[in-house]
Amino acid sequence: MMSNPWIGVDWGTTNLRAWHVDPDGEVMAHRRSGDGAASLSPDGFERSLLMLCNDWFDNARITPVIVSGMAGAAEGWMPAPYRSIPCRPLAPDCAISPPVRDPRLRVSIIAGLAQHQPTHDVMRGEETQIGGVLVTQPQFDGVACLPGTHTKWVLIRHGEVVQFRSSMTGEIFELLRTYSTLRGLIHNAPIDEEEFDAALDDGFSHPHSLLADLFAIRASALLSDLAPTIAVSRLSGLLIGCELSGCQSYWQHHPLTLIGDSKVCALYRRGLSRLGITAMTHDVETATIAGLVAARRLIAMDTR
Amino acid sequence: MMSNPWIGVDWGTTNLRAWHVDPDGEVMAHRRSGDGAASLSPDGFERSLLMLCNDWFDNARITPVIVSGMAGAAEGWMPAPYRSIPCRPLAPDCAISPPVRDPRLRVSIIAGLAQHQPTHDVMRGEETQIGGVLVTQPQFDGVACLPGTHTKWVLIRHGEVVQFRSSMTGEIFELLRTYSTLRGLIHNAPIDEEEFDAALDDGFSHPHSLLADLFAIRASALLSDLAPTIAVSRLSGLLIGCELSGCQSYWQHHPLTLIGDSKVCALYRRGLSRLGITAMTHDVETATIAGLVAARRLIAMDTR
Repeated sequence: MMSNPWIGVDWGTTNLRAWHVDPDGEVMAHRRSGDGAASLSPDGFERSLLMLCNDWFDNARITPVIVSGMAGAAEGWMPAPYRSIPCRPLAPDCAISPPVRDPRLRVSIIAGLAQHQPTHDVMRGEETQIGGVLVTQPQFDGVACLPGTHTKWVLIRHGEVVQFRSSMTGEIFELLRTYSTLRGLIHNAPIDEEEFDAALDDGFSHPHSLLADLFAIRASALLSDLAPTIAVSRLSGLLIGCELSGCQSYWQHHPLTLIGDSKVCALYRRGLSRLGITAMTHDVETATIAGLVAARRLIAMDTR
Repeated sequence: MMSNPWIGVDWGTTNLRAWHVDPDGEVMAHRRSGDGAASLSPDGFERSLLMLCNDWFDNARITPVIVSGMAGAAEGWMPAPYRSIPCRPLAPDCAISPPVRDPRLRVSIIAGLAQHQPTHDVMRGEETQIGGVLVTQPQFDGVACLPGTHTKWVLIRHGEVVQFRSSMTGEIFELLRTYSTLRGLIHNAPIDEEEFDAALDDGFSHPHSLLADLFAIRASALLSDLAPTIAVSRLSGLLIGCELSGCQSYWQHHPLTLIGDSKVCALYRRGLSRLGITAMTHDVETATIAGLVAARRLIAMDTR
């Protein structure tokens, strides 16, 4: 059915990751580059892909390339219109194919998901990771939390995404660390668990004080010695605590699974455990590859 | 007592404003430049001041220069140690004098205020504006709110600052407008009052949803037409609503006066009026000049 190798790609805003996959869905090789979607014009995507893995293509045949992430954004390779929820995260008709110059490629870009009610919301890339997790747990009914720049809380029922909510937590953390009056205070220091817990409790119990609590980190640095490990722990705890307070309807009454970077997931797991919630964790790369494999199978069915 | 003209200066992070003041405290001339404190090394302050108003100095005598704002910060002209509250915003010993090369100058930099309990907090510049307002209303007992990059809520009793709280509202607005995924959506469009009111109510009632509500602005722009006036109104309303929710103990039970830019004060007044609170407004430039005049009188007493 899939008798030849193919290529899976996760095209993020700031980087590009590609996997060479055998017909059984096993990864044979993995490469990455810094050619993120934000740095490319539409005609730059094909060139960047070929620069990264030209030798994975076979002159004798067409190699399918399955792409998730920001390549399908309005400013990406080719806009892939959002699919509206409720729907399965991946489906036979979930991809579009941009025109390519090189005859060895057939590219499929997986569409993101959109929610119109009760609030506007969008995801792009996470649907593939969720689809990957559902391959191994097809019966999962509950909530997937995907921490990141825009953390997603996703309610899943009978294999469909039925509601979701994005939180700007990771982006606010980066903005504060890079550009704000807190810059210079927030380093990649290890987390102080006691300080993180205290800040998480503050953020969770007093989310209305967030804007003041953020400035207090700066004031503490001016008036007392504030170790880097304390500053970063306080900022992380406040932001995640505030997010958990706002997303209570998601984590409170549903089985919960985290999909993401192991360090960030550990912070969310720690915060959730203070609220009496346990969550499984799925590694984001494993989930992405599983989702690309699932998408490859669905798209192959669609084009057969 | 003050028989000669002198110079008042408000040295902000990004700009410098100077007033030539007659012995009665009346402004004779006003100049400004872009030589903000953040762009100067310690020995650049005297040069920038002389470039802006060299002709205001008299070779025959020493002209006092009274400076408020960031010139007294750790990275400024000369660090002016914070005075600890409770204390009057301005006092005879509130200033330090950096060494100068030009014999026509005697510079006094007004110290900021620090709070150590219940939370760490600092202000620098606002103490001068509060001192200016107290000149015209010496009996004022209540709360002064100074909206800005770091909005201050300041409890004043018997002429003393007894407690205060800073909120990063203005800075978060600027970070989101300039660097975030919302950049390009937030313009200097006029405020849509209905949208601002709705967002203010959301921010006030559901401050725990702030991080999600911010992302929803982006999602709305992707899924529907989002006019610039709607986007900026929603962002302003959400942030000010969240701040008002966190600072309720300040505005709820005290007479309230706003000191600030008239456009920003109008937004705060509008938000407060939805909560049943009326507030007087003081123009920030008038308050700053009045505070510099008051400081000039106090410092003259101190050095006599």
